Amino acid sequence: MVPEGLDPWGTVKIKDYDRLVSVFGIQSFRPLKIELARRGLPLSLHMRRDLIFGHRDLDRVMAALERGEKVAVLTGFMPSGRFHFGHKLTVDQLIYYQQELGMKVFVALADAEAYAVRRIPRKKAVEIALNEYVASMIALGLDPEKTEFYFQTNRGTPYYRLMQLFSGKVTTSEFEAVYGDINPAKVVASLTQAADILHVQLDEYGGYKWVIVPVGADQDPHIRLTRDLADRLSGEVELNKPAATYHKLIRGLDGGKMSSSRPDFTLFLSDEPSLARRKLMAALTGGRATAEEQRRLGGVPEKCTVYDLYLFGLVKSDQELRKLYDDCRSGRMLCGQCKRIAWGLLEELLRDFQERLVQARELAWKVVDIPRF
Amino acid sequence: MVPEGLDPWGTVKIKDYDRLVSVFGIQSFRPLKIELARRGLPLSLHMRRDLIFGHRDLDRVMAALERGEKVAVLTGFMPSGRFHFGHKLTVDQLIYYQQELGMKVFVALADAEAYAVRRIPRKKAVEIALNEYVASMIALGLDPEKTEFYFQTNRGTPYYRLMQLFSGKVTTSEFEAVYGDINPAKVVASLTQAADILHVQLDEYGGYKWVIVPVGADQDPHIRLTRDLADRLSGEVELNKPAATYHKLIRGLDGGKMSSSRPDFTLFLSDEPSLARRKLMAALTGGRATAEEQRRLGGVPEKCTVYDLYLFGLVKSDQELRKLYDDCRSGRMLCGQCKRIAWGLLEELLRDFQERLVQARELAWKVVDIPRF
Repeated sequence: MVPEGLDPWGTVKIKDYDRLVSVFGIQSFRPLKIELARRGLPLSLHMRRDLIFGHRDLDRVMAALERGEKVAVLTGFMPSGRFHFGHKLTVDQLIYYQQELGMKVFVALADAEAYAVRRIPRKKAVEIALNEYVASMIALGLDPEKTEFYFQTNRGTPYYRLMQLFSGKVTTSEFEAVYGDINPAKVVASLTQAADILHVQLDEYGGYKWVIVPVGADQDPHIRLTRDLADRLSGEVELNKPAATYHKLIRGLDGGKMSSSRPDFTLFLSDEPSLARRKLMAALTGGRATAEEQRRLGGVPEKCTVYDLYLFGLVKSDQELRKLYDDCRSGRMLCGQCKRIAWGLLEELLRDFQERLVQARELAWKVVDIPRF
Repeated sequence: MVPEGLDPWGTVKIKDYDRLVSVFGIQSFRPLKIELARRGLPLSLHMRRDLIFGHRDLDRVMAALERGEKVAVLTGFMPSGRFHFGHKLTVDQLIYYQQELGMKVFVALADAEAYAVRRIPRKKAVEIALNEYVASMIALGLDPEKTEFYFQTNRGTPYYRLMQLFSGKVTTSEFEAVYGDINPAKVVASLTQAADILHVQLDEYGGYKWVIVPVGADQDPHIRLTRDLADRLSGEVELNKPAATYHKLIRGLDGGKMSSSRPDFTLFLSDEPSLARRKLMAALTGGRATAEEQRRLGGVPEKCTVYDLYLFGLVKSDQELRKLYDDCRSGRMLCGQCKRIAWGLLEELLRDFQERLVQARELAWKVVDIPRF
């Protein structure tokens, strides 16, 4: 049985983030946010705006950081589809940890999983990983000098050894409880993902004892399994439990899932500006049936996928965001005007990004070791 | 469902070798034996005595050998328990291929499987692998200069990459059909075993396109899965199907299974001579109820576990073996006398072996790369 609302391989919509906090033992982020601010740590946009709603052990890691201990932040991308605003959400967080807090960044390129679970041919996975994901991350501002990108199929013996050891530490029924069912591809992919998160603690990979993994709420089953596995090797390989933060998921432009498989409702950072504009103009908003009604009652930004774009980073300033929110709520600004503002910001973002992407793609092929087959 | 009589993780007795040939598509070895002899190839003791009863594709590999192509022979040992006469049977075959036919030998030390499936602690698995298995193989005469021993947890990225790719090429139901059930440890262990057999074809490991795997009949499920996996990567990684030979299993001294878990009925090559002698003297024979009856009717060597020892290699000369057989059958020689002959041969073997074992143990730790954890 899959815990309701949580299936990392599925396509579920998570409606009630607070329920995740109460049911699955994720800690609420708000108290920590206040505490971090009190201690004078800079907060990321996603922290300030409550886009990060929960965490596990981030308090311990931040304390270690303040003591001057080495901290790394880690994520993984499946090289399938194209880089979109949902991916940007994670990369923005990596950039924050790297550039505001000086952390080392690791990025797993899940080509093994892409091949075994998603049936993406090897060469294609490598091309997508570099041209789409690594290049986009660099174009967004992640510093490749302070980032270790690697392919899951090309990571060296101690990493795979961890995966082998993990295989003896999880039962079929536990696996099924987390993933719904079991098959050889999923077993290897999920144990490899645990190795992704934990291997940076090994001496061979820098020995980072503190690791933060920023994930969407749907990824918590992976995090829980990985944390359990860290415990279960105790006495043989000493591994700290990784910390995690949980962010809300940005919606597609129709209010559904943002995903490469739904290109009409998903903004890709490499979209032709004219195409991006058409998608934006057709986006679901929180507008009313008529202009008159909207002037009277105000719009509903919580329903609006354009407001989502602002909230998730298209608008950097919290004050500006507040103003957009108030202008909508009050009925002072209608959807047409708002979309023109959004398009102005989006066009600039796409232009800047796509200019940088050309060079970033060349760089991507140089900064990552490419598997021979 | 496990195919009847075949469970590599179980403890089954295989009674009807010919049935395996007819049901599972294993080729009968006898016609090939005649053909190999006709072509002037030296036959091993196990070939001559029909201890090898079946094969898959050995004819193709032998033809490649005659064309001067590179051929390797490969086996794996689980580092648990102690090295006994059952293991010797495989090692004798490796020595034949290495020394009579000039083949390269690879030996996988299945420490990953020992840990995950059998729950043997890491350090213990390494010690057993080197002190028991590698040392015994060297003491028996396997040339460590022409043998590549390796630990499954210490084999380098391309080997693990194969395992990752395989994970996408087998379904849960296929896996269950071969192994009876599925769990994460078995999935990883069996895919790793497939990588053991196939990775030596990669350039990084010598690029041996022809590989022979001598196995007991109970290991055929592994072989079939591995051969299927080689096919299924076609177009991505070109791998030849491995050849296999199937040998009969030597019985324990009570007629049951020979196994480390049944030490009273299993002859270990490191047994104290006095202990080995006691086990031998208590061994099940094919003798009759009384000496008188046995002189009249003769003994039954087919039932006799002492005769098994002769047959499986304690007696090297086929003529001598024939004489022992005839003397038993005819009633000329009774069990007491026969056991004294056996003890003479066994004592010499143990003495020689144990003398060589001291130095072989030192050497074992030098010729194998030991995993850091």
